[in-house]
Amino acid sequence: MTRRPILTLTTDFGSSGSYVAQMKGVILGLHPEVDLVDVTHAVRPQDVGQAAWILQEVVGAFPDGTLHLVVVDPGVGTERAMVAVELGAQRFVGPDNGVLSLAARRLGFRRGVRLADRRFWREPVSNTFHGRDVMGPVAAHWTRGVDVNEFGPPLEEGLVELPLPEPRRTAGGLEGEVAFIDSFGNLITNIDASQIPGTAEERRNAIVQIGSRSISGIRRSYGESAPGTVLALIGSSGRLEVAVNQGSAAEVLGVGRGDQVKVAAGQ
Amino acid sequence: MTRRPILTLTTDFGSSGSYVAQMKGVILGLHPEVDLVDVTHAVRPQDVGQAAWILQEVVGAFPDGTLHLVVVDPGVGTERAMVAVELGAQRFVGPDNGVLSLAARRLGFRRGVRLADRRFWREPVSNTFHGRDVMGPVAAHWTRGVDVNEFGPPLEEGLVELPLPEPRRTAGGLEGEVAFIDSFGNLITNIDASQIPGTAEERRNAIVQIGSRSISGIRRSYGESAPGTVLALIGSSGRLEVAVNQGSAAEVLGVGRGDQVKVAAGQ
Amino acid sequence: MTRRPILTLTTDFGSSGSYVAQMKGVILGLHPEVDLVDVTHAVRPQDVGQAAWILQEVVGAFPDGTLHLVVVDPGVGTERAMVAVELGAQRFVGPDNGVLSLAARRLGFRRGVRLADRRFWREPVSNTFHGRDVMGPVAAHWTRGVDVNEFGPPLEEGLVELPLPEPRRTAGGLEGEVAFIDSFGNLITNIDASQIPGTAEERRNAIVQIGSRSISGIRRSYGESAPGTVLALIGSSGRLEVAVNQGSAAEVLGVGRGDQVKVAAGQ
Repeated sequence: MTRRPILTLTTDFGSSGSYVAQMKGVILGLHPEVDLVDVTHAVRPQDVGQAAWILQEVVGAFPDGTLHLVVVDPGVGTERAMVAVELGAQRFVGPDNGVLSLAARRLGFRRGVRLADRRFWREPVSNTFHGRDVMGPVAAHWTRGVDVNEFGPPLEEGLVELPLPEPRRTAGGLEGEVAFIDSFGNLITNIDASQIPGTAEERRNAIVQIGSRSISGIRRSYGESAPGTVLALIGSSGRLEVAVNQGSAAEVLGVGRGDQVKVAAGQ
Repeated sequence: MTRRPILTLTTDFGSSGSYVAQMKGVILGLHPEVDLVDVTHAVRPQDVGQAAWILQEVVGAFPDGTLHLVVVDPGVGTERAMVAVELGAQRFVGPDNGVLSLAARRLGFRRGVRLADRRFWREPVSNTFHGRDVMGPVAAHWTRGVDVNEFGPPLEEGLVELPLPEPRRTAGGLEGEVAFIDSFGNLITNIDASQIPGTAEERRNAIVQIGSRSISGIRRSYGESAPGTVLALIGSSGRLEVAVNQGSAAEVLGVGRGDQVKVAAGQ
Repeated sequence: MTRRPILTLTTDFGSSGSYVAQMKGVILGLHPEVDLVDVTHAVRPQDVGQAAWILQEVVGAFPDGTLHLVVVDPGVGTERAMVAVELGAQRFVGPDNGVLSLAARRLGFRRGVRLADRRFWREPVSNTFHGRDVMGPVAAHWTRGVDVNEFGPPLEEGLVELPLPEPRRTAGGLEGEVAFIDSFGNLITNIDASQIPGTAEERRNAIVQIGSRSISGIRRSYGESAPGTVLALIGSSGRLEVAVNQGSAAEVLGVGRGDQVKVAAGQ
């Protein structure tokens, strides 16, 4: 059984128009056997940071060889580069605007090229839709087996980095921020479980401060607290998360992306 | 021609984050030839009843052997069971919280198991995302041909039931409720066409009461009334439905899920 | 390598219920090897004109032989016809209510039939869901290789036309309108780049009037202006478009579909 190559799509195109389908049509025209999987098309328009976060969350779940096409591209038609890169055992095509940098941090940069060879592009190239005319076609050719070095010259200097704040240690413990709000209103922080200080027991008893709230203890699941209760737990991607059991922490706490979160070891 | 197995997905994950794609990535990693079909990911968070309704609507349209994976799971990480069951000629994987019970009522329970054998799970198992780490992997293995009895011990007592009210007969006719509001704003009731009393002719002339409205006659299609008119008809799933031709009955009538609907035979 | 046939879906069913999946289940039951691609299910309910616009935008990106199934069907259950037609080298199934007419104008009508032979329908046929019971099944059979003439008698008089206004020449230049607002809030007009009068240089310097705004020059990309600036450019489908760099022109200008746009040649 030959495995069909998987090609995922992450964009800010929304789901109400034709842009996603145009890109898929071009890809399927070049490689009919590819298996297209939508990650999301609801990235907030031009929000490179949000797309980068979603992408690094998703890569751990896909098998080796998967190609992730990411088109959140506020600089389309300007001098920003477009790239094809290998991070860990997975493949990525997107603009070099930081959108790939969190996945690179997680998987490790291996090699990549800047897209330059127009043989793999769709003509004429629109100035406003490189997802359809450049990155989509290159992704399709790559899944067909074209060598990545055919697409352009090697990236000498690695990828553009996003200025994502890392949590920092303080006298009292750890200080991070809300990095992402999921569709349930859970507040996902940039604090990895492994970074929380203290013994395993102390971590379970840690104090989490967010907004005006002080939350006692890190739980194991939403259902450990009564419905409507604010709680802290380690979420499915291994990060500290603030949630409301059967409710929306974002609404209940009035907290947003970038807001501060502090963790102090328990007693 | 070997048929690719169909695996449908119904969740409350929304479409703005990575959760649906994470689940798909894990499934495709285990079984690349499966054909994934989204039912919906817009179930209201934790709304088991809504998901159960959508599921029983959709099963009639899929071929025998289809596997439906349903992850609306407010009890994730607590002691609720997860199950793999055969209902009629179709297969289902989900939490045993009632979400499968309306499909079971429609198709008939045949056999099932409680998920227990961790060989078919993804390690480590997160406490908050059993769709990705338990139910998704089991669904993938099942479509690959693993025998359902491998997944765990048989369900001795059947499935947890939802307390869905059945319509009841009254002196004047029949009393039911709005069970679902579709994306057009049509009010789908829990009254099956076959339950409406009277001869075929009397049914066509029945009086439907909903909110403060009394609707005369059950039509055959939306277009039988002028645009903007409130009408009653038998919808595409064989149930009594209140609609507004080219409009939203939910908005026009200000009626919601659970609101009462009465039917009296016509003269 | 045999190419899997591509079948796209464009509807106003929304993504929160079971209707799209019901249609897909029926199609896959008849033809498991078809490759289903969603165009959009977020057409505004009963908005035939919006669906027609999206469809003509998308067809250029799909390979020959693609079948487009379009179900925006306010007249379902009334006497409107349903059709299967070949436009250019692509195939279409939908109601004959104008929804196919813009694609026909773009690709050229070749031949078509009115759906009449119930052998290819799903029984019983609901009066309210011909997408599932008539058009979906016919589309599935067509991708399996059934000859289009099997589905019914030839369309003698072509397709129903939408009254889409064409731009008209005026003393000062050209007068058109906003035909579509995309998910970024870009205002796509019905003015094709080739229709704008003047030399290439004069076109670049044209004056575009919309709402109370007068925009000087037609740019090549969003990024040529500062973020927040209103600009005019030729969009990815070759049409004049009014945009705000990294913002929503629809919001900034308060302009909607049908509003007037004037172009005068520059000096």
